[in-house]
Amino acid sequence: MAERHEFIMAPGPTEVPPEVLEAQLELPYHRGPRFGAVIKGCVEALQRILFTKNEILLYTGSGSLGMESAIVNLFSPGDRILVADTGNFGERFRKIAQIYGVDVVAIEYEWGRNAQPADIAKALDGDPSIKAVLVQHSETSTGIVNDIEALGAVMRDRPQLFVVDGISGIGAAPLRVDDWGVDVLIGGSQKALMTPPGIAFVTVSDAAWKANETATCPRFYTDWQTALSSHRLDPAETPYTPAVTIFRAFAKALAMVEEEGIENAWKRHAVLGKATREGVKALGLDVQTEESDKACVLTAVVAPEGIDGAKISKHVREKFGIIFAPGQGRLKGKIFRIGHCGYYAPRDILMALAALESSLQSLGFPVKEGAATSAAANVFRENGLA
Amino acid sequence: MAERHEFIMAPGPTEVPPEVLEAQLELPYHRGPRFGAVIKGCVEALQRILFTKNEILLYTGSGSLGMESAIVNLFSPGDRILVADTGNFGERFRKIAQIYGVDVVAIEYEWGRNAQPADIAKALDGDPSIKAVLVQHSETSTGIVNDIEALGAVMRDRPQLFVVDGISGIGAAPLRVDDWGVDVLIGGSQKALMTPPGIAFVTVSDAAWKANETATCPRFYTDWQTALSSHRLDPAETPYTPAVTIFRAFAKALAMVEEEGIENAWKRHAVLGKATREGVKALGLDVQTEESDKACVLTAVVAPEGIDGAKISKHVREKFGIIFAPGQGRLKGKIFRIGHCGYYAPRDILMALAALESSLQSLGFPVKEGAATSAAANVFRENGLA
Repeated sequence: MAERHEFIMAPGPTEVPPEVLEAQLELPYHRGPRFGAVIKGCVEALQRILFTKNEILLYTGSGSLGMESAIVNLFSPGDRILVADTGNFGERFRKIAQIYGVDVVAIEYEWGRNAQPADIAKALDGDPSIKAVLVQHSETSTGIVNDIEALGAVMRDRPQLFVVDGISGIGAAPLRVDDWGVDVLIGGSQKALMTPPGIAFVTVSDAAWKANETATCPRFYTDWQTALSSHRLDPAETPYTPAVTIFRAFAKALAMVEEEGIENAWKRHAVLGKATREGVKALGLDVQTEESDKACVLTAVVAPEGIDGAKISKHVREKFGIIFAPGQGRLKGKIFRIGHCGYYAPRDILMALAALESSLQSLGFPVKEGAATSAAANVFRENGLA
Repeated sequence: MAERHEFIMAPGPTEVPPEVLEAQLELPYHRGPRFGAVIKGCVEALQRILFTKNEILLYTGSGSLGMESAIVNLFSPGDRILVADTGNFGERFRKIAQIYGVDVVAIEYEWGRNAQPADIAKALDGDPSIKAVLVQHSETSTGIVNDIEALGAVMRDRPQLFVVDGISGIGAAPLRVDDWGVDVLIGGSQKALMTPPGIAFVTVSDAAWKANETATCPRFYTDWQTALSSHRLDPAETPYTPAVTIFRAFAKALAMVEEEGIENAWKRHAVLGKATREGVKALGLDVQTEESDKACVLTAVVAPEGIDGAKISKHVREKFGIIFAPGQGRLKGKIFRIGHCGYYAPRDILMALAALESSLQSLGFPVKEGAATSAAANVFRENGLA
């Protein structure tokens, strides 16, 4: 048989619907009404999906570029910020801030644990010089989903900005930007929003625009004011040549998210997460994630004693053409990650669990045959998805 | 008839071959052998096309991101650089440098004039504190193509770095990075390299890496060392999630460039440029470009007295679905620009000139009917292309 394409079950990039891939086949001119409508359509769909009236700025680049844009557009060297660091992407916030001379106070959580609202409150009470709190919505390295609503409640009557990296969580885990008081939300195209990678976006509240006015970190490509001015043109534009084919794909994918309904998508992801977890546990494996009932983006599986997690994901890739992600940073070798954010249905979870079971057997780990898919299917049936 | 797609004859993004668009239909996982081969293939094809052994770094972003990457990776605040400013993109170099506190000495040329080697030599002789010379290969706002070989000859025995923005020129106008002493060349996917926009790249010489070691401008997403480390992994990677579908398209387009042969592509562009120029002149119009025999990327046409250039490009777009670009910056309204870099053949030039002739008639400018296409066809026949 000819080599089939890789089936991605990593926490991003993720599988993309064929009709979204096909939207890349037209290349409208980037300064004109046809493409202007694409930009406008993306912004307005995102505003509905994210429950926000805030401005949304679109960038050609990875989610990390979006994270950098938030830091350089909000802060000045010497400003103090608080990072609730729950994993690899919390560390990334700290690293970017430090590069720009922003003073980082970090609350370091053990990888797999969630950020706690009480810790944030205590840190802010103890140091009024802090200008912002930065946290991940979903921490892709561990599978945890932080409770942005509860964290937002702590921030409500405080002057600090609330900056949330929603790159892997948006579209999978509940998130209501305006109701929950998120000043800046960073997202990307390539996770639960079912689009090829290449677009980052940020939502910017009035308070964030105010901070932007005085922020002196140097920036050119990521400058928010420049992006806003271009978006406001009629037809809408971006300041520099955008990835027009991916923007077209993004518009199509966002329409599909709205067709399902964002709240239905959240529910589907919750069930996919639960089924995957139950399946993994039925194989006798643990998950890395403490508050695992929230883990709807990916399932971080602890590798069995004596088997390197990367070896498992490698076996699954080589034998079944399914991509699990290995562990990152300090969890390298210790876990592997099954992504289920975006264009995934129960049948994909069954397939992944069956391939995992067989791979564990090949690698010498004893399993109860059939237990994983059976446990997952039970969850799907209980939730009306099977 | 259903609305047909826009036919782009702007100087980028440009028309893309269908087989390149179709390469976007697969989404390989970005950390693995299938995509690693795509990155490696792009780097090696670019090294051959650009005649360089230097490292090449690939970024998801626009060409302007590539320009910013060069400045922040080579310089520190307070460093002095010389910009040979021949238009809108020369101004962009100055703007980026100023944002980062780099001290810019500029030689400002009238828009439409080329940078002169003797001016550079004189400026460098007069100020030994200058660390680098920055110039456009093709200045997209005016259509000029600077003589990088002659400018490189001036730089040869000097300590300054030679930084060239080749975004719109690469693939259309002759360029030999190593022979001509270019330390850093900045390029993009979306011009004569016939790929959708979304990828920027830079070539980095040993001298440029040396400068990079001490450069203190802050940078995260664009950091060269970080990109190099990822490219050197096996399989090759990028540090942050890349626009994988566009990378696949880029690999396909670069293979097509190599199939034609880069030197043949240069010749074709020279003829397309000459034919367009002769056609425009046969209509009684002038070109903006002084050394117009080098203008192979685009033809900047001076709008007739009393007609706004943007009105002409608008008419051509609305009536014929062909995109010419209007003038930029200080040439707004005074010119319009016909792009012919990349996937263009003689028939496209004939079509564009015929549409232009008709549009000028509609706008009340008297033309000698049929003169433009006839003059262009003569050029094509003389050069064995018709």
